[in-house]
Amino acid sequence: MLDCSTLKVNLKRIKSDILTLAEIGQNREDRGIYRMAFTDADMEGKRWLSGRIEDAGLSLSTDGAANVSGTLNGSTDKPRVMVGSHIDTVPCAGALDGTLGVVVGLECLRRMHEEKFVPERTLELIAFSDEEGRFGGMFGSQSVAGKINPERLATMSDLDGVLLSDEMRRHGYDPFAALDAARDPESIAHYLELHIEQGPVLDRLQKTIGIVDEITGLFTWSVWLRGEANHAGTTPMDMRNDAFMGLADFAHEVPRILEENGSDRSRATIGKAQILPGAANTVPGLVEFSLDVRDTSDVVLEELSIAFRKALSAIARRRNLMFEFEQKSYLAPVACSSDVVQQLQTQAKQLGLDYQTMPSGAAHDAQIMGSIVPIGMVFVPSKNGQSHSPAEWTAWSDIEAGANVMLQTLASLSQS
Amino acid sequence: MLDCSTLKVNLKRIKSDILTLAEIGQNREDRGIYRMAFTDADMEGKRWLSGRIEDAGLSLSTDGAANVSGTLNGSTDKPRVMVGSHIDTVPCAGALDGTLGVVVGLECLRRMHEEKFVPERTLELIAFSDEEGRFGGMFGSQSVAGKINPERLATMSDLDGVLLSDEMRRHGYDPFAALDAARDPESIAHYLELHIEQGPVLDRLQKTIGIVDEITGLFTWSVWLRGEANHAGTTPMDMRNDAFMGLADFAHEVPRILEENGSDRSRATIGKAQILPGAANTVPGLVEFSLDVRDTSDVVLEELSIAFRKALSAIARRRNLMFEFEQKSYLAPVACSSDVVQQLQTQAKQLGLDYQTMPSGAAHDAQIMGSIVPIGMVFVPSKNGQSHSPAEWTAWSDIEAGANVMLQTLASLSQS
Repeated sequence: MLDCSTLKVNLKRIKSDILTLAEIGQNREDRGIYRMAFTDADMEGKRWLSGRIEDAGLSLSTDGAANVSGTLNGSTDKPRVMVGSHIDTVPCAGALDGTLGVVVGLECLRRMHEEKFVPERTLELIAFSDEEGRFGGMFGSQSVAGKINPERLATMSDLDGVLLSDEMRRHGYDPFAALDAARDPESIAHYLELHIEQGPVLDRLQKTIGIVDEITGLFTWSVWLRGEANHAGTTPMDMRNDAFMGLADFAHEVPRILEENGSDRSRATIGKAQILPGAANTVPGLVEFSLDVRDTSDVVLEELSIAFRKALSAIARRRNLMFEFEQKSYLAPVACSSDVVQQLQTQAKQLGLDYQTMPSGAAHDAQIMGSIVPIGMVFVPSKNGQSHSPAEWTAWSDIEAGANVMLQTLASLSQS
Repeated sequence: MLDCSTLKVNLKRIKSDILTLAEIGQNREDRGIYRMAFTDADMEGKRWLSGRIEDAGLSLSTDGAANVSGTLNGSTDKPRVMVGSHIDTVPCAGALDGTLGVVVGLECLRRMHEEKFVPERTLELIAFSDEEGRFGGMFGSQSVAGKINPERLATMSDLDGVLLSDEMRRHGYDPFAALDAARDPESIAHYLELHIEQGPVLDRLQKTIGIVDEITGLFTWSVWLRGEANHAGTTPMDMRNDAFMGLADFAHEVPRILEENGSDRSRATIGKAQILPGAANTVPGLVEFSLDVRDTSDVVLEELSIAFRKALSAIARRRNLMFEFEQKSYLAPVACSSDVVQQLQTQAKQLGLDYQTMPSGAAHDAQIMGSIVPIGMVFVPSKNGQSHSPAEWTAWSDIEAGANVMLQTLASLSQS
């Protein structure tokens, strides 16, 4: 049996795969990549990936959700170890979001296979469909996790009203076969994912890799504060029901609410606000705004939700406004498997890497997979925290380091 | 010589004039009046007014700015007393804004004329063109005050790009004749205007009339705060440059700045704000907002301007934002003539009316006329403070009271 402990990835091959895939769907003018799920570019990317899987001597397969897999068969029937991410992109994307995790996973399995390493557990690379959300997001991983139903398959559509089912049929897929993509959780030992951080923490701390211990949950609200639109000149300050000032009061309370009820992993963002009627000489009569709140603990999320509601209610009373809110989305926090976290930390230490244990503030396919099987995630630094733009980048040396941690961890987990 | 002191307006005639003029340009569905300056409806309104002036036996005239006047000649060459307002409207207007002042002025002169009252000073009713601002606002009074120049005449256009000069030509006017509308300030003793308050003060205090002592000045800024757009989940609270939170901080300072630097007549309003990129899951990178600040003292306005600038600058430093601002408009405050204010108060007392001495928070033609001659203004209550909407209304009894104060004051000023 081969000892994998000195095995390293081939950075040249990773580079070449990333740069080649970046050309598929790239706009020559803005340098952005437009490989949105189930577009022709996305399907071309999947064909390219399929070719690379076959070239590597791995077993190629595609499931009913158009997830593409490459498998390195193990010597036993033990539950398999999966590694993956996605190759679909947002419009005008950079080259690494999702893609890096798929390319690194491919390199890990390819490297083991060319060294004739035969794992005890089967290793499977998977590229999930529509992580980025042309049709809502996480479609591929939700299908694997059994979270899709026929109604959603029939009705999911993009912002232009194009149905997912029509796009799948156009590419030769039976959309309802996505229901067959569901896996038995018992058949999977672990799911691992390497991803760019998409935040500034590692870059600012000058750490090479991040080992994720928790993925934050979130709730998003739409909030309406309704006062009375009035003339800015003729309405004395104490006779106003100024809806915007209600929003300003609320925003002012955000830091206090986080300090009193949150953790150091809590985030709260007012990212969107519409002020009506929206004239310089008119006291605002209505504001609608978004509130995005995240934490790694569902207990903390619940406490934050109560505190934000109390604040809104008190401000509405004080300013004589009506308030309403609607929860637009909720995603439960997911803890990474402590076994996998420990393995990743051990491998990082053995490779002499400076790592940071940290939460993931963004949602990933791992969050969906985490609802059915133990998961682990590796982050590599995003320069200036940038992503979802052609400015997204990570040093090749950090990519190599992260890939080697993944290779060693996969090899180790596949033998246990 | 007739003693006018018991003369009263004929409310029936005022009612009939208001309701008749309200039908010109009225939309049957939303009940709003659409008599924007130099539209066909506006010109129809002016023709109707001209007819009413002639019916009343007053001398009809129209100047180069399409201002319509009705004159009751005096027995001497002393500077004249003018009374006026406007009959153009905003889109979807109510029946009283501007119109009431013109109809009441007409009734005052008509009533004196039919009683064979011959004033010492000539009395002139004037309906000014485009007070509401289809082409920028106060066009008629600015022309009379000599504040129009050929360049502005050639370039003024409405929101659809229609040139004022083209609209004037279409109705048979030579636009450059507006330059001839300028009056010698020495020829005018006083300008008086009755107007709906367009604010809630008289209605809430249950006062019948308001006597304006000062018209507020104002400055309007556009302000930009520029931070960095970031992912709402992956960017820790202490690594953000959140432009919206800068705006919230600023809004929070508004009451303090008014308390420290303003008067009880100060107003500050953030009426418009655009937040970019404007996604629920993105920390705002840029906000653009309006600041409208008013006071009756130019010294106070200047102090407020300095205080708002300091606050913006401190917030930008604290939150690591860039800030810029641009002054979009400035209008100097104007004090009413203390003689006229006293006359109005005397007449109100003699009529046994409960009046409130108060500032005007909105701009009116009187503000422009106030830059060349002594002025006075009478307010009547706006129900719920509403205006610029079909909900705009004033009790007939309040209209009658205000009109009688105007009649007595005009009679008195024309004899002094």
